[in-house]
Amino acid sequence: MTPLGVGLIGTGYMGKCHALAWNSVAPVFGDVERPRLAVLAEASQELAEKKARELGFEQATGDWRSLVTDPAVDVVSITTPNAFHPDMAIAALEAGKHVWCEKPMATKLTDAERMLAAARASGKVAALGYNYIQNPVVRLIRRLLDEGRIGEVNHVRLEMDEDFMADPEELFYWKSEATSGHGALDDFGVHALSLVWTLFGGVRRVCSHMAKPYADRPLREGGRRAVETYDIATTLIELENGASGVIALNRSAWGRKGRIFVQLFGSKGTVVYDQERMNEVQLYTTDGPKEIQGFRTILTAPHHPPYDKFIPAPGHGLGFNELKIIECRQLIGRIRGEAATLIEFEDGIRIERTVDAIARSAHAGQWVDVATDQGKRAA
Amino acid sequence: MTPLGVGLIGTGYMGKCHALAWNSVAPVFGDVERPRLAVLAEASQELAEKKARELGFEQATGDWRSLVTDPAVDVVSITTPNAFHPDMAIAALEAGKHVWCEKPMATKLTDAERMLAAARASGKVAALGYNYIQNPVVRLIRRLLDEGRIGEVNHVRLEMDEDFMADPEELFYWKSEATSGHGALDDFGVHALSLVWTLFGGVRRVCSHMAKPYADRPLREGGRRAVETYDIATTLIELENGASGVIALNRSAWGRKGRIFVQLFGSKGTVVYDQERMNEVQLYTTDGPKEIQGFRTILTAPHHPPYDKFIPAPGHGLGFNELKIIECRQLIGRIRGEAATLIEFEDGIRIERTVDAIARSAHAGQWVDVATDQGKRAA
Amino acid sequence: MTPLGVGLIGTGYMGKCHALAWNSVAPVFGDVERPRLAVLAEASQELAEKKARELGFEQATGDWRSLVTDPAVDVVSITTPNAFHPDMAIAALEAGKHVWCEKPMATKLTDAERMLAAARASGKVAALGYNYIQNPVVRLIRRLLDEGRIGEVNHVRLEMDEDFMADPEELFYWKSEATSGHGALDDFGVHALSLVWTLFGGVRRVCSHMAKPYADRPLREGGRRAVETYDIATTLIELENGASGVIALNRSAWGRKGRIFVQLFGSKGTVVYDQERMNEVQLYTTDGPKEIQGFRTILTAPHHPPYDKFIPAPGHGLGFNELKIIECRQLIGRIRGEAATLIEFEDGIRIERTVDAIARSAHAGQWVDVATDQGKRAA
Amino acid sequence: MTPLGVGLIGTGYMGKCHALAWNSVAPVFGDVERPRLAVLAEASQELAEKKARELGFEQATGDWRSLVTDPAVDVVSITTPNAFHPDMAIAALEAGKHVWCEKPMATKLTDAERMLAAARASGKVAALGYNYIQNPVVRLIRRLLDEGRIGEVNHVRLEMDEDFMADPEELFYWKSEATSGHGALDDFGVHALSLVWTLFGGVRRVCSHMAKPYADRPLREGGRRAVETYDIATTLIELENGASGVIALNRSAWGRKGRIFVQLFGSKGTVVYDQERMNEVQLYTTDGPKEIQGFRTILTAPHHPPYDKFIPAPGHGLGFNELKIIECRQLIGRIRGEAATLIEFEDGIRIERTVDAIARSAHAGQWVDVATDQGKRAA
Repeated sequence: MTPLGVGLIGTGYMGKCHALAWNSVAPVFGDVERPRLAVLAEASQELAEKKARELGFEQATGDWRSLVTDPAVDVVSITTPNAFHPDMAIAALEAGKHVWCEKPMATKLTDAERMLAAARASGKVAALGYNYIQNPVVRLIRRLLDEGRIGEVNHVRLEMDEDFMADPEELFYWKSEATSGHGALDDFGVHALSLVWTLFGGVRRVCSHMAKPYADRPLREGGRRAVETYDIATTLIELENGASGVIALNRSAWGRKGRIFVQLFGSKGTVVYDQERMNEVQLYTTDGPKEIQGFRTILTAPHHPPYDKFIPAPGHGLGFNELKIIECRQLIGRIRGEAATLIEFEDGIRIERTVDAIARSAHAGQWVDVATDQGKRAA
Repeated sequence: MTPLGVGLIGTGYMGKCHALAWNSVAPVFGDVERPRLAVLAEASQELAEKKARELGFEQATGDWRSLVTDPAVDVVSITTPNAFHPDMAIAALEAGKHVWCEKPMATKLTDAERMLAAARASGKVAALGYNYIQNPVVRLIRRLLDEGRIGEVNHVRLEMDEDFMADPEELFYWKSEATSGHGALDDFGVHALSLVWTLFGGVRRVCSHMAKPYADRPLREGGRRAVETYDIATTLIELENGASGVIALNRSAWGRKGRIFVQLFGSKGTVVYDQERMNEVQLYTTDGPKEIQGFRTILTAPHHPPYDKFIPAPGHGLGFNELKIIECRQLIGRIRGEAATLIEFEDGIRIERTVDAIARSAHAGQWVDVATDQGKRAA
Repeated sequence: MTPLGVGLIGTGYMGKCHALAWNSVAPVFGDVERPRLAVLAEASQELAEKKARELGFEQATGDWRSLVTDPAVDVVSITTPNAFHPDMAIAALEAGKHVWCEKPMATKLTDAERMLAAARASGKVAALGYNYIQNPVVRLIRRLLDEGRIGEVNHVRLEMDEDFMADPEELFYWKSEATSGHGALDDFGVHALSLVWTLFGGVRRVCSHMAKPYADRPLREGGRRAVETYDIATTLIELENGASGVIALNRSAWGRKGRIFVQLFGSKGTVVYDQERMNEVQLYTTDGPKEIQGFRTILTAPHHPPYDKFIPAPGHGLGFNELKIIECRQLIGRIRGEAATLIEFEDGIRIERTVDAIARSAHAGQWVDVATDQGKRAA
Repeated sequence: MTPLGVGLIGTGYMGKCHALAWNSVAPVFGDVERPRLAVLAEASQELAEKKARELGFEQATGDWRSLVTDPAVDVVSITTPNAFHPDMAIAALEAGKHVWCEKPMATKLTDAERMLAAARASGKVAALGYNYIQNPVVRLIRRLLDEGRIGEVNHVRLEMDEDFMADPEELFYWKSEATSGHGALDDFGVHALSLVWTLFGGVRRVCSHMAKPYADRPLREGGRRAVETYDIATTLIELENGASGVIALNRSAWGRKGRIFVQLFGSKGTVVYDQERMNEVQLYTTDGPKEIQGFRTILTAPHHPPYDKFIPAPGHGLGFNELKIIECRQLIGRIRGEAATLIEFEDGIRIERTVDAIARSAHAGQWVDVATDQGKRAA
């Protein structure tokens, strides 16, 4: 098999993360051809060249459109701000490239639907960057659920909290502008939804409350500007499988850095997980004598694949960036035609529709059903 | 001052807890007269006598009505099932006794309003058994809030979870009957509301979802009976002070035994508390260099009063029962005319109205305003 | 059975703790006669009277010798500084009273041996105040060991750390004087040894290192005085059962308040326990599939007796003072002739001899065998 | 600067870890030339070729001697079993190559001394693979110590525990043979010593106890064979700076997977760290009001370099393998002549001498001084 040619658009947080994943996937897994880091696109030729040097790409361009049509490119990593995703993903798909696009799909649902249509039309793989679902711990949780270790899950709670917007005196910037989206909900809440999707499938209906902890923020030039987005979003949910739950998001949560706290309550046990301690999961089951029942803390280990591809000893710990390497391996497998754990546009649209329903619910102050694509699929 | 004469009705979980508190309050605090354990009432004379012997009461009766009018009794501890609270409390108040009634006030809001009216008419102290607010840790939290250590609180999350209803194959009993109340909400959720009240004051409006994890439960005589109460209640809230939040209750939460998990997010920090580790509180502040910021775990100590009345060394830990001793001391102080931390009927009614609003919200599937007593007070 | 008459000598930290225990043992357990709080002795008549009022004793005396011979007294609680223990305990035993003496027995091994002789001669119960062993968690650990849940224990680590001597600028006081004993070793390290004794039996030999974190401390009158005791003691041990281990003690350990951290490694699992979270124990076993093995945190519950005597609900937590109530119940049982979990002088002398061996080892810088009482018993 | 040519000997646990580090160091740090993965050596040509393909090396050889003299190789990664280190490292150094050798240096102190001599003679960089000291958390601890945040450290405790030898019924293999070394001490205890060295410098004297939890182990062919190495080693230490402490090692510690638990007690605070939660450190200081003092849990973040080279967001977590990338960057810097955090042979020999002293102490049952190289340096 000839190596995949990779095109990378964007070199911010996630751009570097993609680059590192493409760079490491072959030696980590040992069962895939080393991808060719073909072209890197950035806002300017100069920046692109600098980054290409640093990240090991062969060519650099200041024009992403030339990248998506470059014959050396088989798959395009899209890691630019969300508003750019639709144009780039659609262009890449139309040029016959596979796409690996960071979450969320788009800032508007209609754009996301267009992206899905392009993916369907292209027949190419169109995957989203929901890396948290790649954590071996999440795979383990799925396995625990499948095995019935905690019985039937009837209630779920997910919290996702960070504090990058927690300081009320930090200058107003684009994340507080309405054009950036709803706020915590689409900025990072989609990660929580990706976990719900991966573990349980669809959300049936939602009732949300979104809040602004700070009415305004200072401007560099003096004065203050009203905040337009919601740093807090708290949502009651009903899953399609009948379970109830809540998703609580807060990007102004002092002290929380990368917390995704998940509590899954079942008829025979409970699973608890915190992304800030991403190499652990807690499990309570009703097995054995009552006197010794308790939440056990399971440390990741080689028997939690694909941890074994990284480290042969248990309890030594993977890092956040390494989840992207796993995601990359899944993507390559998917392109090869293997079964893969990935959220592709077909599934990602479900998350986007849930986001849309949550936002509408919050504005209307009432329960809203999440749209299904029955009609669209039929169309 | 002559010692208070105590009448105790009920000797279950909370009855014993009251008895132990009355028994220990004097030697623990050293500044109050030892109360006289005068009369104990139980369902039968025989049981009453057995329990009086065990718990150290002078007299025993199978008729609570004789207790509430007994001249030896100054204050009546009411620890019977909730449905009995209104009659007993009102009778005691009308007999000119102080009342210490376990939470919640009643199973119906109208009954609770009648209790409040009786308390107002009597001029006696009418306090409720919301012992969690007596934890020195909760006092510390209040002090942290007052001192502005975490700035202005803009978002709160409270969870209260136990697992005494978690087994779907446990026999149907009265807690699954509608006559017992709504379910988790009034069964124990009022404790969470008592913390909200103590720390922040009133709740303005609510939007709730209540769920039954198990549709039915087995009957002793065979077959199964449909469950009528809600083991799960999840509620979006807006506080009167403007903060948003969520209260999540689950009495079918496997592995949770006495969890009351509280997260308070402010403009300058965060407070986190878990009743299962009731001698700790976590605090994050933005003081000092970023490099060393983190949640600190504060252990209770003599400088967190009234811990010092129990133990002169830090970090040695109070127990659940000891919170009741603190509550008892507050009650005695209140009867003496001192300032006290207590939820009296005047305040307790606010919790009852919030419960009522939550239940109505869940049934209506929409936001409901919590009633205020402006009108009633005017009336 | 007529109620036991109690005499209490000393009303400091442990004196109050004894008083509270004697006061609560009957209502908590419900199966013993309420003891009569007969006489309280303090350094002066005035102080004794004040404390008797607070703690509920009938009579007060400034002369402990009159207390130990008072016919109203059946059992004497000795809670004075360690140097007073021998005279008081011996006098009480010689007067035909049962003795409940706070740990350690004495500041010198020879005194402890005299106390043991007096106990043997008297035929009375002579128990020591090693309350940590009364924690339901410790009982659970013993049961886990007996059931073989972690196989054969081959290695143990115990740490006991507090920070009441951690500030180098705190004034010199008697705990830094050689007359007070060795330092951390006998000041509180005996608690760690009491756990070793309770769980495993005797220590065969020891090799210790004692250290002074601060060479001198300030005097109130100016200048500084050399510290004579050792705030730190770290000891390699070999148990009589063949297991190896270490006991690390530090009373200058900033941030540690009541930590007793115990790690027990066995051939089939591990037990971990921290007194600062005294209502939890961690257990790792090799049962079940590897993928879900992990340390489980067991919360105390009614099925961990005698927790049930305090609270009928799990996970609500006992406090430090309540361990003394359990100890008191054991003592009453022992006086009644029941089997009891108690460290009596017969066993306590083993701890004292271990302390003596550790101190000698530290001074000699070499391994020292712990004396056994074979010879003495033979004598 | 022309890229470094890398030769890798060995492709086990650490071999792959080195390969991944060489592969990622350039894109992660962005400030070094991408090394050229020139030659890989394994036990056979066939295995070497397979691994070269997987790990991305240009050439493969079954003869490590040809690798160390290959002109394409500038630096040799040695990751073979410890017994091979001396010959390989000396040969590489004599061939004028830089050496990056996994810890420990050798199985015998005399061999390690020969390695040091070769390094000195060569003038090349000779570094050891002590990756735990590269954790940003350890760098932070060093900074906290340098800044005096916990005052003067007077007592240290280190524990290193895993459970790969915990099953007594696992077949006898080479780690239980005396030829493999002492046991836990040199197998992994050197990591604990590397932390001591990095944070505090040298160890002055030691007193150790080594134990065999299991006397024998089963043989594949039936019967059992006596265990010759010590899975447990517990050592009292005195540091050159005067602090006392203990190092406890156990490779039969059920449930511990990669635990390195470090407690550093100072005159103004305490630092606690556990490698199983390698992205956290706990700090207690005496700053601020007593009421809010407590151990704070600091999560790694971009302000803890070089975390920032991996992830721009705090609390997202590095993994074990990523420590090797940091070590690799340090090594490249050192080769370039920059200051570097590395344990080179000059320092590593101090660890080897400490190991030697510990082993001698355990066998002699007494305190042993750690040899210094004054004489040798003079020679």
